[in-house]
Order: sequence, then C-alpha cells, then structure tokens
Amino acid sequence: MAEVYLVGAGAGDVELLTLKALKILQKADVILYDALVSSEVLEFAKESALLINVGKRKANHSKKQEEINQLLQQYSKSHSIVVRLKGGTPFVFGRGYEEVRALKEVGISPTIISGVSSTTSVPESFMIPLIDRMYNDSYRTITGHDIKLFSQIVTSYHPRESLVVMMGVYNLQKIVEHLLSVGYPLSMRLAILSKGTTPQAQKILYTFREISQKEEDFFTQIQSLTPAIIFIGNGI
Amino acid sequence: MAEVYLVGAGAGDVELLTLKALKILQKADVILYDALVSSEVLEFAKESALLINVGKRKANHSKKQEEINQLLQQYSKSHSIVVRLKGGTPFVFGRGYEEVRALKEVGISPTIISGVSSTTSVPESFMIPLIDRMYNDSYRTITGHDIKLFSQIVTSYHPRESLVVMMGVYNLQKIVEHLLSVGYPLSMRLAILSKGTTPQAQKILYTFREISQKEEDFFTQIQSLTPAIIFIGNGI
Repeated sequence: MAEVYLVGAGAGDVELLTLKALKILQKADVILYDALVSSEVLEFAKESALLINVGKRKANHSKKQEEINQLLQQYSKSHSIVVRLKGGTPFVFGRGYEEVRALKEVGISPTIISGVSSTTSVPESFMIPLIDRMYNDSYRTITGHDIKLFSQIVTSYHPRESLVVMMGVYNLQKIVEHLLSVGYPLSMRLAILSKGTTPQAQKILYTFREISQKEEDFFTQIQSLTPAIIFIGNGI
Repeated sequence: MAEVYLVGAGAGDVELLTLKALKILQKADVILYDALVSSEVLEFAKESALLINVGKRKANHSKKQEEINQLLQQYSKSHSIVVRLKGGTPFVFGRGYEEVRALKEVGISPTIISGVSSTTSVPESFMIPLIDRMYNDSYRTITGHDIKLFSQIVTSYHPRESLVVMMGVYNLQKIVEHLLSVGYPLSMRLAILSKGTTPQAQKILYTFREISQKEEDFFTQIQSLTPAIIFIGNGI
C-alpha cells in the first residue's frame, strides 16, 4: 500500500516550503500539484518522479475535484510514495479534506504536512498584523465567494476583529455593502492584497466610503488583481 | 545598520521550519528566541551565534515584552544579522508587531519571514479541517484569554463557522457558557488540542453538554493540558 502525503507548499515564495515538505518531495514517486504551486518547488522532485498538473479551471470546479480524487486513488495503487502538493496548507481552503475522504475510501490514511498558509503569510508580507495588541484580538478567515453565506456568517461588527476574505474580489461591492449594513463604519479600511509573496505582489488600500462610491468599471478592473486576499480591519 | 528578521519557527515539529527561516538562522549573529521554539531549531545556528532565551513567564508579560524590545534595539546596534525567532508565525499572536514598532523607533524596518502557524497546523495534525465543503466556510482565530472581549466579539452562532480559540483553556467554562447563551447548541463539540505537533500531543473531545455538567475539579485538571488550542465546530 502506498504512503500518501497531502503537503502544503506554502504561499508563492518557493522558500516558504518547509523542511518536512522538501524531504518528502525528494522521495516522491508521483506529485500531483496545483496551479498555485510555484514551479521552482517541483525542481526538488527526483528525476524519475511523475509530475502531474491538476490545476483547476474556475468554470469546472467540482468535476475536476472528482478527477483529482480518482487520480489520487489510482496512483496510490500503482506507486509507493504519492504526494498531493497544494498551495498554502492542506486544510485551509483547497478542499484537502475531500481528498482525505477519497483516500479513506480505498483504505489509505494520508499524512498531512502543514504549510505556510497564504491567509497569514500574505498579510504578513505586507506588514499587516493579524493579531496586534493595539488593534485586533481576533480575525476571521472566510470565503467571499458565496455572498449569501458570507452575509449569514458575518452579522455584526467589532472594532478588534479583522476579516481575511479569500476569493472575495468578484464580490467586493456586495461584501462592503453587507458589512456597512451590519454596522461597519464608512471610515473602515480594506486592503486588496494581490498576488501576495510573488514579485507581482501589490497592496491597494481603500476606505469603505471610497468603495461605496465606485462605478461598475472599477469592479470589473479589480478582477485582474486575483488571486487576491481582502483584508478588512483597523490597523492597516 | 543591522539587518533584523522576525522569523516564524513553525509549530512544535522542528521540520515545520521553512527553507527561508533555515537560511537566515544559519547566517544570524544573534538569535533571540521564545520559550515555544524547539531547541532543535537552534542547532541550525552557526557556532559563533549568540543565542538568547527571551521566553516569557505568564505572570510578568508586559514587562518582559518591553525588555525584549530593548534587547532587539540594542543588538541591532551591536551586531549585523539579528534574528527574532518566534513560535508559529510572527504576526499571529506573539506580539510581533510590537517588536516592529520598537525597531522602527530606532530606524530599522525588519523583514518578516512567515512560518507555519499553530492555529492551522495543530488542527491539521489532528486531521481537523479548518475549511471543508461538508462543514465549514469560515473560521475565527481568537484569544480566549480575555473572556469579556471574547463575549463581545462572538455574538452569534453559525453552523458553518468554526472557532480556533488560543489561550482559552483557563476560561473554558466561561467560554462554553457564553457560546451557549448566544445560540450554540448543547450538542456542539469541542476538541482540546494539547501540545500539538509534539510527541506529547493529544486531542480530547467533549460536547458542550458534557462541559456544562463538569465540576470545578475538571477545570483545574485540564489546565495541565496547556499550551492547547480549543477547536469548536461541526465536523470534529
């Protein structure tokens, strides 16, 4: 039976890989990797390793995840050391636990190798603290992809809690509208952290007031900033 | 002027160190390290490096932080490469941003090297997903140290949001009482994740109903489980 590893590759910068991830990449017979994984990380693989890009296309998410699950099941039959290499860390977005279920179906308990999550390292790379005595005691890491769900979960404002919104750029206008409706002040600031920890990284700051006055064009244009994290909170 | 690095050492397991952190540890002239940093990590330092334990004692927090800030300021005058090595990642608890302020006072902009945060890697090490399509779309990372603040921030329940409560074991009874009062069900489960990613790691599961029936003794005994994370949510 194969050893299967779900490995976090860290966020963007290849050197955010952990020593543990490096070791297992060097031993792996098969590496199934995501679109967000840096190509430099793959250079650590041994020459005979089979490298398989399973990067997802936005339009075809759930079908692709099933295919990835099947590939994992197949390769764990045919090869000894199988690595599923994911951006960030396996259980923070990225549907790692679905892959665990698929592997358990065929009798395999994968090992999880945690990585540096973009949810923490991207704000850090822009010198934004997640927790800081002066401003915040809590932060919420949430998907902005489903605005209805977002609105159901975030139902109040507290000045000492920040939001780390993943996949929220497409819904930025609705997110800000909702937050204003539950008590966030117009003076609240948000940062769009685009392509974090890569050479193309940029941070763009807005107040909620500014966002609430923007026209349609603006919301179309900012879509080019993805992948991006929206950080909302005092202290930025 | 010195180069100063705030470096995340990862959580517990020495191999959760990043390649970037390793490189800078090997070059450092001075390393100021926390109590939670594994001693094996320090073995990567060069022989001539000055290793300074600045681990904090619970009773004397704020004084100690001032001392650390002063030490950072001093060593950045006397040495070329100064590393402040912190458990987890610099800006998630651990007061890293206060150290940034202290360094800026003396004209230094430190470089942040993100690490693997215990807030994500400890649940992962126990096979608990932070985000999983079946159960959760959001998680809140919050200190349980100040129960008043905790109660002000967490004011409602949503089944698809988990809580990652840091430094909450001493307040476990009050935390559960508060969460029940804002709508968490008695059937809700929590996991105490003790000494995560070390050989002494253990997970203990309770329902809120069980916690609400415990006597004083229990709450005294569980204090021996610290450092621990309390994970609260569906899907555990």
